[in-house]
Amino acid sequence: MPETAEPWVYLVGAGPGDPELLTVKAARLLEHADAVVYDRLVGEGVLDLVARGAMRVFVGKASSVHHMRQEEINGLLLRLARPGRVVVRLKGGDPFVFGRGSEEAAHLARHQVPFAVIPGVTAAAGCAAAAGIPLTHRGVATGVRFLTGHCRAGAGLDLNWESLADPKTTLVVYMGLANLPEICARLIAAGLPATTPAAAIASGTMPDQKVCAAPLGELPERVRAAALEAPVLFIIGRVVEAMAWLKAAGRPSHGVADEPNEQHGHG
Amino acid sequence: MPETAEPWVYLVGAGPGDPELLTVKAARLLEHADAVVYDRLVGEGVLDLVARGAMRVFVGKASSVHHMRQEEINGLLLRLARPGRVVVRLKGGDPFVFGRGSEEAAHLARHQVPFAVIPGVTAAAGCAAAAGIPLTHRGVATGVRFLTGHCRAGAGLDLNWESLADPKTTLVVYMGLANLPEICARLIAAGLPATTPAAAIASGTMPDQKVCAAPLGELPERVRAAALEAPVLFIIGRVVEAMAWLKAAGRPSHGVADEPNEQHGHG
Repeated sequence: MPETAEPWVYLVGAGPGDPELLTVKAARLLEHADAVVYDRLVGEGVLDLVARGAMRVFVGKASSVHHMRQEEINGLLLRLARPGRVVVRLKGGDPFVFGRGSEEAAHLARHQVPFAVIPGVTAAAGCAAAAGIPLTHRGVATGVRFLTGHCRAGAGLDLNWESLADPKTTLVVYMGLANLPEICARLIAAGLPATTPAAAIASGTMPDQKVCAAPLGELPERVRAAALEAPVLFIIGRVVEAMAWLKAAGRPSHGVADEPNEQHGHG
Repeated sequence: MPETAEPWVYLVGAGPGDPELLTVKAARLLEHADAVVYDRLVGEGVLDLVARGAMRVFVGKASSVHHMRQEEINGLLLRLARPGRVVVRLKGGDPFVFGRGSEEAAHLARHQVPFAVIPGVTAAAGCAAAAGIPLTHRGVATGVRFLTGHCRAGAGLDLNWESLADPKTTLVVYMGLANLPEICARLIAAGLPATTPAAAIASGTMPDQKVCAAPLGELPERVRAAALEAPVLFIIGRVVEAMAWLKAAGRPSHGVADEPNEQHGHG
């Protein structure tokens, strides 16, 4: 194939939820897509951008029996792919941060299907901006790390807790709602103070966003009491204190209807 | 102020370089901006989107004497900010991942200036997608962490090297070009094998993107020989091996002119 060949399949990051946080490229691809394959982490508003005549395939609601196995999704992408057709595999956040985008990419490569990966705003960045929590801050957090709190049924969380318990590195936990009590307990047992500031952000960047802040030791109880529902992202570390000083000038504005993620307008 | 007040200043992530990787929201704000304050990490193509009549203020070329100090940038944002004016502070990547966006946010909050933070595609996600390196991959990397290789003149790198030397966590080093030899040597001394796959990505997502892959122990010499210039991002970990299998079907296509980041089209 010539170098100018167009990809047949695009693995596209749908961003954190707010359709305005799609990339320009992702929005353009959705408008021109012939088929869109998406899952539960893709916001409703994002799907409104899909071309009217395009085929839409919903492949899953996690934690449910009504979802397609990864092998089936891989097979579906292969069957849909053909020259001249624009197939968009839309994944919440960024395709290469958790979410198995690399497995789909590998499967397409193995079958010689030309594809491209379009990065997206990962949930950590989206939720951080929307909640007013920097992921790094000079003198407070010199770095940030992303981990998943999800594990297969029967398998425990296989993480190096001693390494994670570092007060100078912000921790962001994706998909950790089910295992939150264990995650917090293990971090504390490994030496992270129970007083470490932490926050849970449900439906981050969306109009129904909920933020629940509490010290690490109290987070599971507070999240349970608030009845937060997935998707929930957890941010753990001293940067969470910034929520208070970034809002010092007033309570956050949830803004006008078309500006759902301007949480920092001090109204 | 009423809850519906518009922000006066927007701290906006400009994404990794390719203007198509701006968010829809960032692109719209640039089109409507009255003033744009930007620095060296913002790509040329991104600035082309700025409204014709808008004031443009360039505030810096790092590692140069010709740049504005952070206090001056903070002061500039305050002076520009006023009701009804759209001031965009454009920052490479995401405003809350390194780059001191949180310091600017805190300064605005302290002076009661209504502001909003618009997240962006961070360099790690952009470079990963463009180079074909997943940041996480089941069974290979259970998480990813971002650190900065930059330190103030005279100050050494203050990092917990033992914690960083974890073969199951992908490391992404921002702003590490000047200190690359020290970073690699310290990671190896802390136990990360010198054979760990690693890659340097210069001008990631841009038409002049260069990718240089080498085992960790050889990376500094290879980067020097390739004469890579900043901005360079480093990805260290077994996920870098995926570059080979994702490209198994052919060499990457740098694509047609308007598709500069479709590195994975197997042409």
